Amino acid sequence: MSIHESAKAAKSASIHLAAVGSQQKNEALRAIAKALQNRCSEIVTANQQDLAQAKQDQLAAPLLKRLKFDEAKVADVCSGIESLIQLTDPVGQTLSGTELDQGLELYRVTCPIGVIGVIFESRPDALVQISTLCLKSGNAVLLKGGSEAAKTNKILADIIAEASEAAGIPTGWIQLLQTREDVNEMLDLDECIDLIIPRGSNAFVKYIMDHTHIPVLGHADGICHVYIDSDADVDMAVSIATDSKCQYVAVCNATETLLVDQAIAAIVLPQLQTALAAHNTEIRGCDKTRTILPEVKPATDEDWDTEYLDFILSIKIVAGLDEAIDFINAHGSGHTDCIVTSDKNKAATFMNLVDAGNVFWNCSTRFSDGFRYGLGAEVGVSTNKIHARGPVGLDGLMIYKWKLVGQGQIVADYSGPQAKVYTHKPLDKGFQL
Amino acid sequence: MSIHESAKAAKSASIHLAAVGSQQKNEALRAIAKALQNRCSEIVTANQQDLAQAKQDQLAAPLLKRLKFDEAKVADVCSGIESLIQLTDPVGQTLSGTELDQGLELYRVTCPIGVIGVIFESRPDALVQISTLCLKSGNAVLLKGGSEAAKTNKILADIIAEASEAAGIPTGWIQLLQTREDVNEMLDLDECIDLIIPRGSNAFVKYIMDHTHIPVLGHADGICHVYIDSDADVDMAVSIATDSKCQYVAVCNATETLLVDQAIAAIVLPQLQTALAAHNTEIRGCDKTRTILPEVKPATDEDWDTEYLDFILSIKIVAGLDEAIDFINAHGSGHTDCIVTSDKNKAATFMNLVDAGNVFWNCSTRFSDGFRYGLGAEVGVSTNKIHARGPVGLDGLMIYKWKLVGQGQIVADYSGPQAKVYTHKPLDKGFQL
Repeated sequence: MSIHESAKAAKSASIHLAAVGSQQKNEALRAIAKALQNRCSEIVTANQQDLAQAKQDQLAAPLLKRLKFDEAKVADVCSGIESLIQLTDPVGQTLSGTELDQGLELYRVTCPIGVIGVIFESRPDALVQISTLCLKSGNAVLLKGGSEAAKTNKILADIIAEASEAAGIPTGWIQLLQTREDVNEMLDLDECIDLIIPRGSNAFVKYIMDHTHIPVLGHADGICHVYIDSDADVDMAVSIATDSKCQYVAVCNATETLLVDQAIAAIVLPQLQTALAAHNTEIRGCDKTRTILPEVKPATDEDWDTEYLDFILSIKIVAGLDEAIDFINAHGSGHTDCIVTSDKNKAATFMNLVDAGNVFWNCSTRFSDGFRYGLGAEVGVSTNKIHARGPVGLDGLMIYKWKLVGQGQIVADYSGPQAKVYTHKPLDKGFQL
Repeated sequence: MSIHESAKAAKSASIHLAAVGSQQKNEALRAIAKALQNRCSEIVTANQQDLAQAKQDQLAAPLLKRLKFDEAKVADVCSGIESLIQLTDPVGQTLSGTELDQGLELYRVTCPIGVIGVIFESRPDALVQISTLCLKSGNAVLLKGGSEAAKTNKILADIIAEASEAAGIPTGWIQLLQTREDVNEMLDLDECIDLIIPRGSNAFVKYIMDHTHIPVLGHADGICHVYIDSDADVDMAVSIATDSKCQYVAVCNATETLLVDQAIAAIVLPQLQTALAAHNTEIRGCDKTRTILPEVKPATDEDWDTEYLDFILSIKIVAGLDEAIDFINAHGSGHTDCIVTSDKNKAATFMNLVDAGNVFWNCSTRFSDGFRYGLGAEVGVSTNKIHARGPVGLDGLMIYKWKLVGQGQIVADYSGPQAKVYTHKPLDKGFQL
């Protein structure tokens, strides 16, 4: 099948998948989990072939670790599917109801978006998580994984397709794309694909965003800030800054730049330097920072716009809250920014004026995550300004339809001199036929 | 000011506008209405100059009518502003709250999108409506109107800027762009503009969608369908089809193609022909239609994909519900589609499987409209698959932030062998600092 044919098959399946009931979707999810467990040895064998090839290709150790998909990982994804089954079906929820006139009722009802194109990194777990999220939310999915996981992805997609289709899910709802060229073709298929979710490096996500007219949900950079206000508790500030930077550096919600009010810098920075040193973290400071910590490297203009994803922190001393907010809005990526202060009003101002998906007061930027937020499964993190922002759960895969039920009403009767009048009464019942 | 400078000024104002309280925004709206009334004669004079130029340029009569902005129109837009003042402030609404742990509370709170770029047709009313909607929702706005309304738009934008800024709204929140070249420059400003709403011809909206990476909210085509099922009440079907086509043909929610179940076609079509003839409406029929109505023009393949915006209706006879749904999903534009039937199950299937923003049962497609839906003011109609769909009110100008309030919590305490456990308890209070 060509990519275009795959995408058309997914589109066609998506129409019918949108109307599949909750029970049938949950049965299909159970069948998928069972099949993954039953065919665990096949999966592990395929993964061992991918791993052997990857070692031969001298892939870096962290990539090999992400690629590994053993019995424990199979058990993990199956337990994830069990949690997903427990979640309320996001399809068919009535968001609002209005009586337009007697016997003319309008409902806004959630429905799936349609066909989701997902491009994901080497972890084969992502294939299972994303495809089951799509199934639960009634969306068809086109999946493109990393070539290093080709064999593992192939068997996982085959098992999911077979098990779900045997359980009555429309054939073609899950499609695996195989080659890197497929990605470029995918970006042109705006007639068949409704939303693209790319997961990968900044450069890759930017490339996707720049080369398609299909809406893209995701984030390129994650340049997060902690701002230590003059009214901060110093111990708390040092603890939050250290956790935000060092708890796990390779992720988008790790802090890259610290801002400190000049009134508190001389007290905070030496303590912070000690705490960061325990994590072997390099500091790059502005000129004022270097008057307090003379031995640190100078920060260049480039530092303020860099996502290190490493044990490096840039530090800038600012005149106060306003400069901090302006700086974050100029250099941040709209991901997650935190203020440490004991002043409620300054916290409120920061949270109102910083233009980011996640704005925190007195806690680590590392909390910005779907699991920690209690969303259950996570599709990804969005720095978009429309549709969905921050950690995105099942919600981000939903849209709505307006459903209007009448008894023959026509607009001509509601215009002109004898016009009938709209009642526009709120309805407190859900849509049901 | 260059476009880039205008957009930067709007972006900068948008940050502070996001935090302006409801009372101040409503006072500014009142000040705008008062200033429009006080300076009514200046507005009418400017409009007369535009009208004189437009007549000299031999603009078509309908365009002249749309361009006209007299005392009555000023009164209309002021009454619109009064209604807008009555609406609940959409900013700062808590969508959800979750306790992540004791003293660590997460809220999802609505906020403005930021900077909206609006490109609108010749009606100067649109300038007032859109800019006041943006103000109410806390968004800054870049406005580009038709050149034929240049003088009217200029004075309206000046009055709105002066009155609102005197009432404390951040300077620069409203920017008027003057030339057609400005539009192309605007499309490149993805750093400053968060959403573009184009209102105009299909070709124009398509051009915008194809030439920017900024999200676009709107619709190009409005190819709406009425499907008359075998179980339809014939009188109702004829009435709905006639209203959907003829009540006002120049609009996106007018029906362009009628589908009829073959079992009922011989009864419905002759009656429909008579009803349409009363509105001088041309029929273009498929081969089967022409066996029943032999004198009508044959429909070509192109007809099924054409938005006539005129007294023309294409008619196709189908084998039943499935063919109707497939045909609509292939040829519709995802705007508004209606089934006429007395069978509840068929209606449910149609409403679930037709992939459109508005799916109707037994009423005219012409009801698909923000005013008729009771949304109050309308930004436009969207055929997007994400963010907002169908008629879009204030809601479509909103997004949310995640606000997390802690007492020094760090992620390190929630990982490893001694990990604290998330409580993930729903909170039933709104966000407040």
